[in-house]
Amino acid sequence: MKSYRHELVVKIPERMDFINITGDVTQALRKSNISEGLCLVNAMHITASVFINDDERGLHRDYKRWLEQLAPHEPLSLYDHNLTGEDNGDAHHKRQIMGREVVVAVTAGKLDFGPWEQIFYGEFDGRRNKRILIKIIGA
Amino acid sequence: MKSYRHELVVKIPERMDFINITGDVTQALRKSNISEGLCLVNAMHITASVFINDDERGLHRDYKRWLEQLAPHEPLSLYDHNLTGEDNGDAHHKRQIMGREVVVAVTAGKLDFGPWEQIFYGEFDGRRNKRILIKIIGA
Amino acid sequence: MKSYRHELVVKIPERMDFINITGDVTQALRKSNISEGLCLVNAMHITASVFINDDERGLHRDYKRWLEQLAPHEPLSLYDHNLTGEDNGDAHHKRQIMGREVVVAVTAGKLDFGPWEQIFYGEFDGRRNKRILIKIIGA
Repeated sequence: MKSYRHELVVKIPERMDFINITGDVTQALRKSNISEGLCLVNAMHITASVFINDDERGLHRDYKRWLEQLAPHEPLSLYDHNLTGEDNGDAHHKRQIMGREVVVAVTAGKLDFGPWEQIFYGEFDGRRNKRILIKIIGA
Repeated sequence: MKSYRHELVVKIPERMDFINITGDVTQALRKSNISEGLCLVNAMHITASVFINDDERGLHRDYKRWLEQLAPHEPLSLYDHNLTGEDNGDAHHKRQIMGREVVVAVTAGKLDFGPWEQIFYGEFDGRRNKRILIKIIGA
Repeated sequence: MKSYRHELVVKIPERMDFINITGDVTQALRKSNISEGLCLVNAMHITASVFINDDERGLHRDYKRWLEQLAPHEPLSLYDHNLTGEDNGDAHHKRQIMGREVVVAVTAGKLDFGPWEQIFYGEFDGRRNKRILIKIIGA
């Protein structure tokens, strides 16, 4: 069994935004020399998500509005978590909706994707360095 | 390490519905000849989910009502995504709540399940062919 | 390829609560003698979750309040599922928000975690024995 590990570091200028990391994951898979297996991609921080959906700007605006409705950033007093001095209570909730990780099949050396699947990093408490883990196992 | 890949194709007559695919996954596992490992099952489309829960009609009615509350199909103008000419903005949101994929342990050649676990395909933009991926790795 | 399986049994005195199971998973990983691979941790019951987030009491209070808003326990008549004689319709919904499982990378014999990642069992229909599955595969 082979395994391969790679970390991405991102710094998102907004509090909340989504970036397409499919190219980075594809490149890691190429370096791994793994042709059959599973590829895990996860946020290493608990106010961020990795998820698979469409690379369409309108949809991303919709997601932001919807997540802000489901777990508003303000008032900060909405979250007991913010009593610790943090202001990211909302981000811990948004991350649960969008998920921590994706597991993608690797087949014939490629990410085994349907026609529109793209991997996104979702940031909910940005403006500082965050890490994303790629771990691939297989043969 | 062994690996096995199988695709299911489904066409759901409703816009939103859930179908139990546990039998299909069990059959794929049997064909894989893998006795210890992990089994990934994921929607290959981004307006659909694969999730594990109860095979109970009342619960499925509850899920449909609840998802429709959280991300209503109409008015279509609720979603910037629909400005592309699509009418499935809601489906991309419902799929995030229910999730893209499940990873199931394989032990002694079987899906290693608790007493009520069943695998469902959740469709949120049906009436056309959609694909589901089963990828099993192990020994 | 090596694999290792371990079950945890928990009995949560409240209907809804979260417990940190990171220590149990770490111990299972040590016993597995696996140094590179993937570790799946999932609830074996469909009214419970396994998720990764912060070990902070204020946040857990926030999660409970938020989940109760998104899928209230009462009135019981809110859920067709409760027509079966159950009273846990809400729990099946809360579990979908928080997720069934996590997949964690194993690197150099350790859970490959970011600085704050901790694994939680989330109970939404407690006061009876429930099982959690840990399955690790790798080399």
